[in-house]
Amino acid sequence: MEANQFKDFGKEMIDYVANYLENIRDRRVLPTVEPGYLRPLLPEQAPNEPDKWEDVLADVEKVIMPGVTHWHSPKFHAYFPTANSYPAIVADILSGAIACIGFSWIASPACTELEVVMLDWLGKMLDLPADFLACSGGKGGGVIQGTASEATLVALLGAKARKIATVKGEHPEWTENQIIERLVAYTSSQSHSSVERAGLLGGVRMRSLPTDDKHRLTGSTLREAIQKDIEDGLIPFYAVGTLGTTSSCAFDKLEDLGDVCNKFDVWLHVDAAYAGSAFICPEYRYLMKGVEKADSFNFNPHKWLLINFDCSAMWLKNPYWVVNAFNVDPLYLKHDQQGSAPDYRHWQIPLGRRFRSLKIWFVLRLYGIDNLQMHIRKQIGLAHHFESLVNKDERFEITAEVLMGLVCFKLKGSNELNEILLKKINGRGAIHLVPSKIGNQYFLRLAICSRYTEKYDVEASWREIQAAAKEVIEENRVTKVNGINGINGINGTNGTNGVNGHH
Amino acid sequence: MEANQFKDFGKEMIDYVANYLENIRDRRVLPTVEPGYLRPLLPEQAPNEPDKWEDVLADVEKVIMPGVTHWHSPKFHAYFPTANSYPAIVADILSGAIACIGFSWIASPACTELEVVMLDWLGKMLDLPADFLACSGGKGGGVIQGTASEATLVALLGAKARKIATVKGEHPEWTENQIIERLVAYTSSQSHSSVERAGLLGGVRMRSLPTDDKHRLTGSTLREAIQKDIEDGLIPFYAVGTLGTTSSCAFDKLEDLGDVCNKFDVWLHVDAAYAGSAFICPEYRYLMKGVEKADSFNFNPHKWLLINFDCSAMWLKNPYWVVNAFNVDPLYLKHDQQGSAPDYRHWQIPLGRRFRSLKIWFVLRLYGIDNLQMHIRKQIGLAHHFESLVNKDERFEITAEVLMGLVCFKLKGSNELNEILLKKINGRGAIHLVPSKIGNQYFLRLAICSRYTEKYDVEASWREIQAAAKEVIEENRVTKVNGINGINGINGTNGTNGVNGHH
Repeated sequence: MEANQFKDFGKEMIDYVANYLENIRDRRVLPTVEPGYLRPLLPEQAPNEPDKWEDVLADVEKVIMPGVTHWHSPKFHAYFPTANSYPAIVADILSGAIACIGFSWIASPACTELEVVMLDWLGKMLDLPADFLACSGGKGGGVIQGTASEATLVALLGAKARKIATVKGEHPEWTENQIIERLVAYTSSQSHSSVERAGLLGGVRMRSLPTDDKHRLTGSTLREAIQKDIEDGLIPFYAVGTLGTTSSCAFDKLEDLGDVCNKFDVWLHVDAAYAGSAFICPEYRYLMKGVEKADSFNFNPHKWLLINFDCSAMWLKNPYWVVNAFNVDPLYLKHDQQGSAPDYRHWQIPLGRRFRSLKIWFVLRLYGIDNLQMHIRKQIGLAHHFESLVNKDERFEITAEVLMGLVCFKLKGSNELNEILLKKINGRGAIHLVPSKIGNQYFLRLAICSRYTEKYDVEASWREIQAAAKEVIEENRVTKVNGINGINGINGTNGTNGVNGHH
Repeated sequence: MEANQFKDFGKEMIDYVANYLENIRDRRVLPTVEPGYLRPLLPEQAPNEPDKWEDVLADVEKVIMPGVTHWHSPKFHAYFPTANSYPAIVADILSGAIACIGFSWIASPACTELEVVMLDWLGKMLDLPADFLACSGGKGGGVIQGTASEATLVALLGAKARKIATVKGEHPEWTENQIIERLVAYTSSQSHSSVERAGLLGGVRMRSLPTDDKHRLTGSTLREAIQKDIEDGLIPFYAVGTLGTTSSCAFDKLEDLGDVCNKFDVWLHVDAAYAGSAFICPEYRYLMKGVEKADSFNFNPHKWLLINFDCSAMWLKNPYWVVNAFNVDPLYLKHDQQGSAPDYRHWQIPLGRRFRSLKIWFVLRLYGIDNLQMHIRKQIGLAHHFESLVNKDERFEITAEVLMGLVCFKLKGSNELNEILLKKINGRGAIHLVPSKIGNQYFLRLAICSRYTEKYDVEASWREIQAAAKEVIEENRVTKVNGINGINGINGTNGTNGVNGHH
C-alpha cells in the first residue's frame, strides 16, 4: 500500500470510526451471532493478490460488526468500563508510525523519557506520595504495564526477590527452595482472580482471606493470618489490597493493611485497577488513605481515564527488587541509569513494549484535568441516579454501597429468580449486564461504562430491566439447572466469568 | 474532544505519519539527546484546561522526534526489524474505536473468531502441519501473544502442567513440590535471554546447552543432557529450539531435537520469532524441517511480516495444558467451547487483550501473499548483497553464514578493535548497528530492518562502515576499559544488551 492510498484509506477510516462511535447508541449492544459465525464469511486462506482497501472497509460492516459486543454503547453495563477516546486513537496512529520497541533507553529515548514524565503527571493527578514519583529524585518511579494482572505479578516477583534476600541474610544455610516453600502471600476472597493466578505463576502460597460485612479486607484479619503463619514457621512476604473490587467495588481498609504489612515487613501492593481513576478527584481520595504505606500502586487509565487499552499505570517505591527479580544480564545492569533513564524491559514480563505514553500525553493535554474530573464525577452521579431508581421500586434492592460507577442490585427473592432475570435481560439484547455472587448471594451488576452515557440512557436501561423483571415475575417459573448452564455457556454470564472484567 | 475535531486532528495525523515515513531516510537515525533531555521540555504537570490539538501535533516535532531512534529508517540495522505498515496502522484505528476486551467469546465474538481464522490463514501461509490449525477440526489452534517472551513462558507453563500430571499418575505419593524440584528444561547458549527468564519465572531448572560450530543446538547434545539428568533422578519436561537466533540467526537442528523430545516425552517449543516470517516462502521451509514433531510453534509477524507490534503468533497442538496451567475458574471451563470458540484469556498471561487480529486481516488482504513473499525475498537479497560487499574488502570477514536478513561481520583483528569500530559507527550517527559476542568473538550485526531499504541504502551503509573503519585503523589506538564501558553505558551496545532485539 502506497502513501497516497494510505492517506485515502486512513481518512476514510477516521470518518468511519467517528460515525461508528457517534451513532453507537443505535446498534444492538449484544450480537446475535452463534459461535462459528465468522469463518464461513471469509475465504479459507489469504489472497495472493492484494484486495482493494474499499472492499476491506466494506467488509468491516459485513463481517466484523455483526459479531461485535459494543463496549462503548451507553447500553453496555457489563464488567467495568474500558477506555476509548479520540485523542488516544490519534496518539496510537503516531505510535504505530514511530513503531519503536522501547526495551532500553537508546532504543528510543523519547519512548522511555515520556513514559517517566507521564507517570509523574498521572501520579501528581492522584496526589500519590512523592516517593512513588521519579521527579522526587528518589528511587521511586512509574511504568506502564499491559494489564493489572501483570502489575500484580510483577509486584509479587519483586516482593519474592526482596524477601528471599532478607531471609538469606538471616539464614545463609537455607537454600532458595527452602525459603520459597515457606513464603506466603495474602489477598481477600473479593480480590480479582488474577491475584490468585499471580500466586500460581509465581509458585508461592496465596491465602484468600475473608472480608467484613462490606466485603473489605481488614487489618485485623490480615494480622491474625500473618501471626498464625509465622507461628507455623512460614514467611509472609506479600499482600494485595484492592481499592474497588470487581464484584461489588468494595475498598479494603488500606491504612490498617499498611500498618500490618509494615510491621511484618510484608510488601503491600495496591490494586486500584478500576477505582484508581477516581482519585484524580480530591473528594474520593479518602478511599486511598494509607497508600503511603504501600510498596507498589497500580490502576488502569485504560479502564476509566479515557486512555485506550493497554495502559496500566504502576508505581514502585523501590524498583530495584523488580528489576532484579528476573533480570538475566547483570553485566548490563551495571550501566543502568536508574531515575534519569530506567531500562523498562527489566520492569515487566515481556521484553518488547510499544510507545504507549503518547496516549497518556495526548489524552491529558486534550481533555485537561478539569474535564477528566468532570467525566469521573458525571459517571458516579449517573450510578447514584440509577441507585435511586432501584430504591424507588420495592421489588428490588441494592446489595452493596454505591461508591463509584457500579451499582449492585437484585430482585428481592431467590438467586434463581435473579439468574432468570439476568438471562432475560441479556436475551432481550437491548442492554448488557453481567452478574456476580458473594457468598451465597447472586446479584446483578450495572456499571456505567460509556463516555456517551447520559441520564436518559440510564433511565432507559432501568426501564428495560423493569420490563424484563415484569416478564420474569409474570412467568413466575423456576429455572431448570440446564437453563442456568445455558446462561453460563451461551452468554458467559456465570458469576465467575461475569465478574472477570478486570483487564 | 468532539467528533469534528477528531476528524481534523486524525486526518492531519494521517498526513503527518505518511510524511514522516516517506521521508524517514532524511532523519538522523540515532538521536543526539542525553538522558533526561525530555523533562525540561514539558510542564511539570498536566494542564487543567485542554490544549489545542494543533499545539500537541506541533510538539511532536519539538519534543518527541529529537529523542526518537528511527527504527524504520533504511539506516537502522540494529537488533532485528520491527514491523510497520500502512494497513496495520489503519487496522489499529478501527481496533482502538471498537476497543473491546476479548477475554471471552461473548465479550466480543468477532474478536475471538477473527483471531482463530487469521491464525489459520497465517499457519497455512507457513505450511504448518494441520494439527496446529483450528480448521483441522482437532484440538490444535493458534493465539496472538504479545511477545515471543510470553509465548516461551506460556509453553513452559503448559509443559510443566502436562509433566506434573503424568508424574502424579506414576507417583501418586509425590507432592507437587517434589515433582517441580526435579523438573528440568533445555535450551541452547544461543537462545534468547527471555528463555532463561521463562525458566526463572516458571521456577524450574533451565539448562543452557552448548551449540555446534554453526551455533546450532544438535539432537545428540540434547539427548546426552536428557539422559544424564534422568540418570541423576531429574525429570526433563521442556525444550526450546530456536529458528533464527538473535546473535547470528542460527537454526537449531529441529528435526533431531524433535526426535529426542518425542522419545523422552519432552515438550518441544519452537521459537522462530524473527525467521518464522521467511517460511511463507517455500524455498526457506527446509529450515523448519521437523516442526511437525513440536508441541508449540511461535513467530512474530510484528517483526518481519509488516504487522505492527504487538502480534506474536503462537500455535499449540493441544492447548488443554496451557488453558489448565493457570486457569483459576474450573467451573467456567466446563462451559468452554474449544475450537468453535476458544476462551483466549486462558491462553495467555494477562487477562485483557486488544482486537489485534484486525491488523493481520488488513495486512494479509492489502499486501497479498505474493507481495509479502517479495518483501522477504528482497530483504534477504539485500543481506546477501551486503555480504558480498564485505567479502570484497580483505580488511573484513563474515563471522556467520548468512541465511536471512542478518549479516554478522567484523574487522580482522581483536575484539577491542571491533568495539572501537562499533563505537565509531554509532558515534557518527549516520547508521545504527549493535554488536554481539559468541564465545570470545565480538562481532557486528547488520540487520536489514526497514521496508524502505533499497540496494543503494545498503551500499551507503557499507560506505559508512568503511569510512569508520578507515578512521579506526588510522588512529590505530587501543581503547581503554572505561572507553568500552562508555560504549556500553551511553550507546547501550554491549553484547548482552545489543542482541536483545527479540521482542
